[in-house]
Amino acid sequence: MPELRKDPITGRWVIIATDRAKRPNDFIRQSVEPAGGGGICPFDYGNEHKTPPEILSYRNSGGRDQPGWRVRVVPNKFPVLGIEGDLNRQGELMYDKMNGIGAHEVIIETPEHSLTLADMTERQIEEVLWAFKERVHDLKRDRRFRYIIIFKNHGEAAGASLEHPHCQLIALPVIPKRVKEEVDGARQFYDLKERCIYCDIIQQETAAGTRVVMETDRFAVIQPYAPRFPFETWILPKRHISHYEESDAAVLQNFAWVLRSTMRKIEKVLERPAYNLMVHSAPVQDAELPHYHWHVEIIPKLTKVAGFEWGTGFYINPTPPEESARFLREAGLS
Amino acid sequence: MPELRKDPITGRWVIIATDRAKRPNDFIRQSVEPAGGGGICPFDYGNEHKTPPEILSYRNSGGRDQPGWRVRVVPNKFPVLGIEGDLNRQGELMYDKMNGIGAHEVIIETPEHSLTLADMTERQIEEVLWAFKERVHDLKRDRRFRYIIIFKNHGEAAGASLEHPHCQLIALPVIPKRVKEEVDGARQFYDLKERCIYCDIIQQETAAGTRVVMETDRFAVIQPYAPRFPFETWILPKRHISHYEESDAAVLQNFAWVLRSTMRKIEKVLERPAYNLMVHSAPVQDAELPHYHWHVEIIPKLTKVAGFEWGTGFYINPTPPEESARFLREAGLS
Repeated sequence: MPELRKDPITGRWVIIATDRAKRPNDFIRQSVEPAGGGGICPFDYGNEHKTPPEILSYRNSGGRDQPGWRVRVVPNKFPVLGIEGDLNRQGELMYDKMNGIGAHEVIIETPEHSLTLADMTERQIEEVLWAFKERVHDLKRDRRFRYIIIFKNHGEAAGASLEHPHCQLIALPVIPKRVKEEVDGARQFYDLKERCIYCDIIQQETAAGTRVVMETDRFAVIQPYAPRFPFETWILPKRHISHYEESDAAVLQNFAWVLRSTMRKIEKVLERPAYNLMVHSAPVQDAELPHYHWHVEIIPKLTKVAGFEWGTGFYINPTPPEESARFLREAGLS
Repeated sequence: MPELRKDPITGRWVIIATDRAKRPNDFIRQSVEPAGGGGICPFDYGNEHKTPPEILSYRNSGGRDQPGWRVRVVPNKFPVLGIEGDLNRQGELMYDKMNGIGAHEVIIETPEHSLTLADMTERQIEEVLWAFKERVHDLKRDRRFRYIIIFKNHGEAAGASLEHPHCQLIALPVIPKRVKEEVDGARQFYDLKERCIYCDIIQQETAAGTRVVMETDRFAVIQPYAPRFPFETWILPKRHISHYEESDAAVLQNFAWVLRSTMRKIEKVLERPAYNLMVHSAPVQDAELPHYHWHVEIIPKLTKVAGFEWGTGFYINPTPPEESARFLREAGLS
């Protein structure tokens, strides 16, 4: 019998279609295999002139926009939002619009074209995580920006247009609907219980263990109770903190290790899938929130979103999270 | 300069990335070309025994589960929800779940394996629309079902697993989040203005004309003001009515013509794209609602949903609806 489960934060129902239960190798998919930059990739050493001038780099040698960097942050060459101008809200008959003010940056994770998060060193990933933190701190001083999302599209099926390892950052002049739902849902729980719902989830999940992928002193990696997608994975810091950018050095160091290990498990079990990774963090102009808790969500691209999902916001997930957690847990760390 | 636009019903913002403006032929995509049933398609004549026994058919000849039908409705062989049992809501520690009670049916639109909505006759489509109506009326008598969604996935890229023309119907024991948002958003507008927001949209759009694809006495076909996807198309009945299944014969007859014409335009301009089509209708146990208005949404599968969209619920649309409306308008009718 299939089961309907409710996400306790957003109230979204999902169908866990147990009768269709799928094992990792039941998903038709293509492994992401880098083709190589062939000298033309704008994120390779020597092609720094092909990107807009860099905003930030961590370097072994060289000057601005020269080779020798380890991590490099540049404006997106085709930004979806423009950085310049005042925010201008307008009506248009019954509709509302505003000009597209925002920032759109690319975090190039490594000069090595064909690495993935699973192959990089812990130290390399840690520097990427520091670059996230540094960029958010810089951008949040601009009061026009109310939300900053950091995300990674890996593989063409997940919407990546360049294969060189990179993340993106978009600063937005409004708080997006999805974020508002999550923050509001968490606030409702806090109003009722005076506890953070994410802290409760971490406690319950690590006590029960069935949906736990791995755990350290500082992080829990779980398959959520009501996942939209098979092998949807959440990484949560154990100590309550609402804003990613306020994480300290010890947290980021352990996060690098945990993220790398998690990606190694996912790459092993699902054979190098395409995936999306999103950092969920509190709106940047808010002070520390007692009810919200930053975390990372990873969605391997295994199923297609179709008419049912678009029409209802309901998701059909053929893999119970207890099963996907077991597969990932048993994959070992390698 | 890109523009942020807000959907007036759900409050969802989208980015109209005008700097990336895309014409129909800029989208990399594969046309949906039927391969043919090859005698093994379970929806072809002669294979009626390959599906569960039929629930409804409109026929020229033959008996139940025999060839001779024009439209045939059967239970989905791999249903995501089960029809039998009482609804049982349960807690599981901090979480909520219920057993997966529901109905999952397939509406086979025609015995001809390789037709599309654009190729079928008006009369054929009209019968499909009658089958929708008849099935919803039958299922809504079951008080366990609170929402019924009818949708169509066309082409593998849109999640279709069988190419024979068919729609699906899923009856759910809860009102899905996305539907609730839409109905609640429309109710808020009604509370403020005492007018239906969809009626207002139809009036404004047909008066302005820039986002209109086509119009009849009974229907308006538009590109919405804040579309999530390029060439997202809405078909709205002009006379206010909240439930699809209450549409009368004259409305369904004209809807068949309008749907066929719209699909012919979409198939021509976008070269037979994969798409999802969803009937948005009021929750089935509600009486006629003054604030909600049934309509159809069609999403051609042209772009990928990636980390930014999953993380924020914000959508980036490279094609302004004024441009896509012009392309579709100018495509002619056939």
